[in-house]
Amino acid sequence: MKKVVLLRHGESEWNKENRFTGWADVDLSAKGVEEAKKAGEILKSEGYSFDIGFTSVLKRSIKTLWYVLENMDLLWIPVQRTWRLNERHYGALQGLNKLETAKKYGEDQVYKWRRDSNVFPPSLSKDDKRYPGLDLKYKELKEDEIPLTENLNTTIQRVIPYWKDVIAPVIKLDKRVIIAAHGNSLRALVKYLDNLSNEEVTALNIPTGVPLVYELDDNLNPIRHYYLGNLEEVKLKIEGVANQSKV
Amino acid sequence: MKKVVLLRHGESEWNKENRFTGWADVDLSAKGVEEAKKAGEILKSEGYSFDIGFTSVLKRSIKTLWYVLENMDLLWIPVQRTWRLNERHYGALQGLNKLETAKKYGEDQVYKWRRDSNVFPPSLSKDDKRYPGLDLKYKELKEDEIPLTENLNTTIQRVIPYWKDVIAPVIKLDKRVIIAAHGNSLRALVKYLDNLSNEEVTALNIPTGVPLVYELDDNLNPIRHYYLGNLEEVKLKIEGVANQSKV
Repeated sequence: MKKVVLLRHGESEWNKENRFTGWADVDLSAKGVEEAKKAGEILKSEGYSFDIGFTSVLKRSIKTLWYVLENMDLLWIPVQRTWRLNERHYGALQGLNKLETAKKYGEDQVYKWRRDSNVFPPSLSKDDKRYPGLDLKYKELKEDEIPLTENLNTTIQRVIPYWKDVIAPVIKLDKRVIIAAHGNSLRALVKYLDNLSNEEVTALNIPTGVPLVYELDDNLNPIRHYYLGNLEEVKLKIEGVANQSKV
Repeated sequence: MKKVVLLRHGESEWNKENRFTGWADVDLSAKGVEEAKKAGEILKSEGYSFDIGFTSVLKRSIKTLWYVLENMDLLWIPVQRTWRLNERHYGALQGLNKLETAKKYGEDQVYKWRRDSNVFPPSLSKDDKRYPGLDLKYKELKEDEIPLTENLNTTIQRVIPYWKDVIAPVIKLDKRVIIAAHGNSLRALVKYLDNLSNEEVTALNIPTGVPLVYELDDNLNPIRHYYLGNLEEVKLKIEGVANQSKV
């Protein structure tokens, strides 16, 4: 039996302000730092250790993994950063307040943008200063890899090749892996692993800073999964994510 | 013309206590954190940027590089950690106070242990709890790669293969490289690059937390080198390193 630990970054400044973030490279809030440190403490106290970490190129995930590994005295393990684990690109919604947006476009529309696997948020244009092609982080990407907006299914299309080509082979070698990433890049991974339908994934909300353990068989099919830590707190956190755009 | 930036970690807890550190995995002091952050500010203000970082598997260097990259908004670049950039292993001296050791064994003996490229400090035994073979960080090393003590020339023998095989090819591809490492792993690299004799390297002292720029030709032969920042401060720091074991 193999295990992989998924971890959504701690609260970011824009989580706190209830804004659509996507690829905006927003820092952790003070609470987010504490969440990350606590995740490290929980993992350590539960006897976890890791041989390698994977994260996005966005600092809220990079730092979350850093604080986890620091608390576990594992800063020396290799860490791979990749744009493929980035949050879903939220297109022209990036930076907007979720509640304001719901008031303007209606709760239904915002709910679809947030949770319908096939609905795209409004697209960025390439002359928008938020266009990732202008950011050094993405200078190695081909133009057709740089998103102007993404839905969950297009996010899956760039997350899963990395899972298959890079992460899965490492897990098969019995390396202990932690993936620190984002609400929707982790939902993308979970949809793939658990073979969820578009409808089933709608209700899936992953809380910030809570280690999510997947137990996998030798073919990396999930056996079961569970959160670590205080499960009552986890439940409240999940409800919080679901209610972000309720007016 | 190519450039590489060498950076000795900021002050560690044991630098502060004037103890022989070697492979002991000691944290940065508060001053060391400030030195690292300042190094990042200097590099940023001088217009430097990096495509990749290299460091040891010891947290004082890993954290130094972290604070530098955080201040430069470069946490997303790849960072490779390797035991080959570790500090020189100080054998059975690890943990001892430099001044106390000088009083016990004489300044001359301690100076030789510190600065004679061919003199080994007293060796660890394999049942010493400081033996690196007991540390998970080194579980991938072959037994004959795990040092019981090192002098500068044996340090060179494990630093330079990494320079030649990993770092140099990256610099030749015009990637901008920063190496955050240790007093003696950097002295080893500089001895090799500048083709210094055993005598010449004796007087070479690299201060903590000051970026040292090497300009290299296309074959990676050094053209010139210089420190960044306030050069008067740098001079005082260098004298401080030289005087650590003066009774």
